[in-house]
Amino acid sequence: MAVNLPALEAVLAVPGVRVAASPGAIKHLGRDDIALLVLAEGSTVSGVFTRNSFRAAPVQVAESRIASGGIRALIINSGNANAATGAPGVQDALAVCAQVAQLLGVPEESVIPFSTGVIGERLPVKKMVSALSVAQEKLCDDSWPAVARAIMTTDTAPKAVSQVVLVAGHQVTITGMAKGAGMMKPDMATMLAFICCDAAVEQSCLNELTREVAAKSFNRITIDGDTSTNDSFIICATGIAGQPQISSSTHAAYNELRDGILDVATELAQRLVRDGEGATKFVTVRVCGGAEPGECLAVAYTIAESPLVKTAMFAGDANWGRFCMAIGRAGVQDLDTTGVALYLDDVCVARNGLIAPTYEDAAGTAVMAKDEYVVRVELGRGACEEVVWTSDLTHEYIRINSEYRT
Amino acid sequence: MAVNLPALEAVLAVPGVRVAASPGAIKHLGRDDIALLVLAEGSTVSGVFTRNSFRAAPVQVAESRIASGGIRALIINSGNANAATGAPGVQDALAVCAQVAQLLGVPEESVIPFSTGVIGERLPVKKMVSALSVAQEKLCDDSWPAVARAIMTTDTAPKAVSQVVLVAGHQVTITGMAKGAGMMKPDMATMLAFICCDAAVEQSCLNELTREVAAKSFNRITIDGDTSTNDSFIICATGIAGQPQISSSTHAAYNELRDGILDVATELAQRLVRDGEGATKFVTVRVCGGAEPGECLAVAYTIAESPLVKTAMFAGDANWGRFCMAIGRAGVQDLDTTGVALYLDDVCVARNGLIAPTYEDAAGTAVMAKDEYVVRVELGRGACEEVVWTSDLTHEYIRINSEYRT
Repeated sequence: MAVNLPALEAVLAVPGVRVAASPGAIKHLGRDDIALLVLAEGSTVSGVFTRNSFRAAPVQVAESRIASGGIRALIINSGNANAATGAPGVQDALAVCAQVAQLLGVPEESVIPFSTGVIGERLPVKKMVSALSVAQEKLCDDSWPAVARAIMTTDTAPKAVSQVVLVAGHQVTITGMAKGAGMMKPDMATMLAFICCDAAVEQSCLNELTREVAAKSFNRITIDGDTSTNDSFIICATGIAGQPQISSSTHAAYNELRDGILDVATELAQRLVRDGEGATKFVTVRVCGGAEPGECLAVAYTIAESPLVKTAMFAGDANWGRFCMAIGRAGVQDLDTTGVALYLDDVCVARNGLIAPTYEDAAGTAVMAKDEYVVRVELGRGACEEVVWTSDLTHEYIRINSEYRT
Repeated sequence: MAVNLPALEAVLAVPGVRVAASPGAIKHLGRDDIALLVLAEGSTVSGVFTRNSFRAAPVQVAESRIASGGIRALIINSGNANAATGAPGVQDALAVCAQVAQLLGVPEESVIPFSTGVIGERLPVKKMVSALSVAQEKLCDDSWPAVARAIMTTDTAPKAVSQVVLVAGHQVTITGMAKGAGMMKPDMATMLAFICCDAAVEQSCLNELTREVAAKSFNRITIDGDTSTNDSFIICATGIAGQPQISSSTHAAYNELRDGILDVATELAQRLVRDGEGATKFVTVRVCGGAEPGECLAVAYTIAESPLVKTAMFAGDANWGRFCMAIGRAGVQDLDTTGVALYLDDVCVARNGLIAPTYEDAAGTAVMAKDEYVVRVELGRGACEEVVWTSDLTHEYIRINSEYRT
C-alpha cells in the first residue's frame, strides 16, 4: 500500500562498517530479525533519542554508552521493543550486548542495543544470544539490504539509501537505513534510523551534526502523531575516508558532509511516510508566512495529524473547510484569518480567509486525486516557513492496528 | 453504531420557551434542518464559543449579541456551517436573523444564529427564509424531540435530556439538547448545545455558571481531537419559575441550579461521545495523582486521542504498551515512570512503570471486550484528578468521513 516507495537501489558499502542479519525467532519464525553493525576502531558515533517518558531499556543503555564514546558495535532487533520493562528490561539489553562483546572481542560498553516491536514484553534473550553467533559469522561489507529488512516491523519494504559526496576533496560514502510505519511522530528522531559514513568527524561536532540533521528530516514527519518509546537516530563516522577530521561546524567540510547526510536522512524520512501504515497518499504540508517557526510547525502538524483532514486526503475529497478548521485550531495567537491563503499544489483554494473567487471544486479534487501533492498555507504574518510530510488515514491503518498483536 | 445511547425519554417543556423545527432543504430534502427557539421577555442568555481562529459567521454574531443582552430567539440550521465564509457569511447570518425578527415582532439584535454542517459554503438564505414562516407557525412548548433531531448532522439519533430540580425551594425545569459526532474536541463548548431552564438568573452570574458547566462537561470529551469552527454552548434562563433571581455564585441556589444543569450537560456530552462517528466503545479515561490538573488533562487527552490507543480499543486488544506510549508522550515534565500505574476497570495492568506481577492478558482483554470501561492512570505525583470521555477509532469513522461530502 506504500506510495511510490522506491525499491532498494545500489546500497553502498561504507569502509569501516561490517553488517549482518540473522533470524532470532523473536516474533515470527524464519525471518531475519537481528541486525549487527560493527564499526572500525576510532569511529565516532552520535545519536538522538525519543523524548517519550517511557524510554525503552535499549534507549537508556545506548544513550549513556554513546556519551562515553568508543562505540564499536550496534545490535538491533525487531519484534520486541523492550519498552516499559523496567530494570529487568535493562538487564536483558545488557546481557545481549555482553554476548556481542564477547563474540567480537570488544569491551561490553562499546556495544549499543536497539529494539523495536511490541511494547511491554520481556526480550527473549536466550533466542537472541543463539542467533548472534550466526550473525557474527555472516558479517561482511555489503549485507545492507538484508539488514534493512531485518529491522522492519509493519514496514512493507526495507528503506536504505546511499550517496557519495566530496568532503574536503575526499570521497565520502554515506549509507543510511530506517524503519517505521506507525507510532510515528518522531520527537528528536524516528523509530530507528542509522546512517554510517567513512568521514572523520570529531565527537562534539558529530553531535551537533546529528541534532541538525534530525531536526530537518526525521523530526519533520508524522504518520499518526504517536511518538514511539524507542525512537533512535544514530550517525556513525568511521574516519576511513582519510580526510582531515571535521572538528567544527564552521568548517566548509562540515557543510559538505551535513548536506550529504541530510539528503540521505530526508529521503529515508520521506520513505517512512510513503510506507506509512495503510498510506495511499504522500502529502507535503508547507506553511509559509509565519511570524516564527513554531507557529508554522503547529499549523503544519495540526493539518498533518487531523483525522478529518487525513480522511479527506484518503477520499481525495477537496473538503477545504477541514483545512481551515485545522489551521484555526492550531493555537496560533491572534491569527487574523482574513490574511490566510490555502493552495493545493498551484490551485488557490482560499484567499483572505475565504474561498477564492476563481476556485472550482473540480480543480481541488483533481489535485487531491493524485497520490502526491503539496498543501500550502500562507499565514500572512511574517517570513518563516516549515515543511512536514505526512500520509492519509485509511481503512488499512485501522485494520493493521486493530490486528497488530493477533 | 452508537454505544448504549439512550432513546429520548420524556423531554420536558420549559416554561417561557417555545420551539419548532421545519424543513429548509439545506443539504437534504424532506428532513427538518431548521430549529427555532423563542424565549420569554426578560430571559437571560449566556454562551461560550469555539476558540478556533476560523470562527464561523454565526458564532461571531451570536457572541456579540449575547454580550448586549435582551436575547429573544435562537435560529439554528444544520447542513451548512456558514464558516470560512468571510464578511458575506456574516451578512447571510444577519439576513436570516432579520427575517426571524420580523416574523416574531422582536428587535433584530435579539435574534442569534447557529449553524452546523459543511464548512466553506455560502448559507442558502432564500431557502431558509421560506422555511422560517413554517417554523413560526409550528412554535409550541413540546416539540423538543423534533428540534433535537433538526440540528443533527452525522449524529445517528437526537440527544435531549430533562431534569427537574429544586432551586431556593422552587421547582425549576431544565431541558437541554446537543448535536455532534465528529470534529469533536470542544474547546470552550461543543458543536452545538443548548440548555434552557425557567430559573431566574442575573446575567453575569449566568455567564459564570455557563463557563463552569462547560469546563466540566462539554470540555471533557473528545472523539477525534478536531475542534469545530462552530462550537457553541448556550444556556437560557427564562425566569418563569418565580424563584428569587440568582445574582451570585455564593448563593446556595446557584449551587442547586449549577448541579442540575451540570447533570444535564454531562449527560448530553457523554451522549455525543456514545454517538461518536463510528464509535463501538465508550471509554472513561481517569488520570489521578497529578501534580496539577493540566498534566492530568494532558495525559487523559493524549490517551483519548492516540490513533494507536483508539484502534486497540476498537479491537478490544489490551495492548497496554500503547497506553504507556501515550502517557510517555503527553509532555509531563520529569515524569518518573517508576511511579506510574495503569488500570483497566479494576484490573491492575502495570505498576511501578512495568507490568504488574499479578497481571494476565486475559483479564485486560476481558475488560476491553466490554463496550464501556474505565482506563485509570495513576501518575504518583500529587492529588489532582481529571476525567475525559472518548470513543474508539473504527472503519466506520473512516467510511463516514471519507464519504461526508458525497
